[in-house]
Amino acid sequence: MDQKTMRDRLAGARVGRLATVGADRRPHIVPCCFTIAHDTLYSAVDGKPKSTRALRRLENIRVNPSASLLVDHYDDDWERLWWVRVDANGRIVDPGTELEDAVTRLRAKYEQYQREAPEGPVVALDIVNWRGWP
Amino acid sequence: MDQKTMRDRLAGARVGRLATVGADRRPHIVPCCFTIAHDTLYSAVDGKPKSTRALRRLENIRVNPSASLLVDHYDDDWERLWWVRVDANGRIVDPGTELEDAVTRLRAKYEQYQREAPEGPVVALDIVNWRGWP
Repeated sequence: MDQKTMRDRLAGARVGRLATVGADRRPHIVPCCFTIAHDTLYSAVDGKPKSTRALRRLENIRVNPSASLLVDHYDDDWERLWWVRVDANGRIVDPGTELEDAVTRLRAKYEQYQREAPEGPVVALDIVNWRGWP
Repeated sequence: MDQKTMRDRLAGARVGRLATVGADRRPHIVPCCFTIAHDTLYSAVDGKPKSTRALRRLENIRVNPSASLLVDHYDDDWERLWWVRVDANGRIVDPGTELEDAVTRLRAKYEQYQREAPEGPVVALDIVNWRGWP
């Protein structure tokens, strides 16, 4: 899969699955909405209720920034399967221009965020590696 | 989400996303087909071509058996979102009755495996923890 196709498929996906790693070296995986800007993905952590799942993701990234996000297409016709995965370094976005821009982009992609802006922290995933299959 | 619903949704899913962790503490995530028997999931690694992605999954599990498998439903109506995640200990299934049984179950669930049985190694994921949302 060429770079343009990988980027188009990643950008077009409504949901990705984000994997992080805890201090205990166990993987943590959660579906998430996200948007892409240049070589960074942004994903808002659902602010309410303040659930342990949201906290886990943030905690993991603080301890170990290594993260991986997968988008894939499943079809019972296995000739049509594909996936795109990015390895990234995660960080929590500080208040400021980058955060405002990320929220604007999330609201542009997801009309659900137009009705109600994301209130929780925003995670940035700075892409270090792309993989696509087939 | 109650235990029965979690199990039904997990068992019924055609695809899951499997996260493992490398010796370098980076997460690895890949979509996979799987079947459930009691408290163990089985997933066949595609045997051909012998790709690095298949090897990575196996290598990670040998070094660190901690694994997590997620199934989820995405819908643009966010009231309908759900996911089920199991944390598990992974292992490669040795030849014998367990392997034969796992392949039989995979072929029963996926007709694609009826046309051509999975040839690669089979990973067992012994479930240690269930999580469901909402």
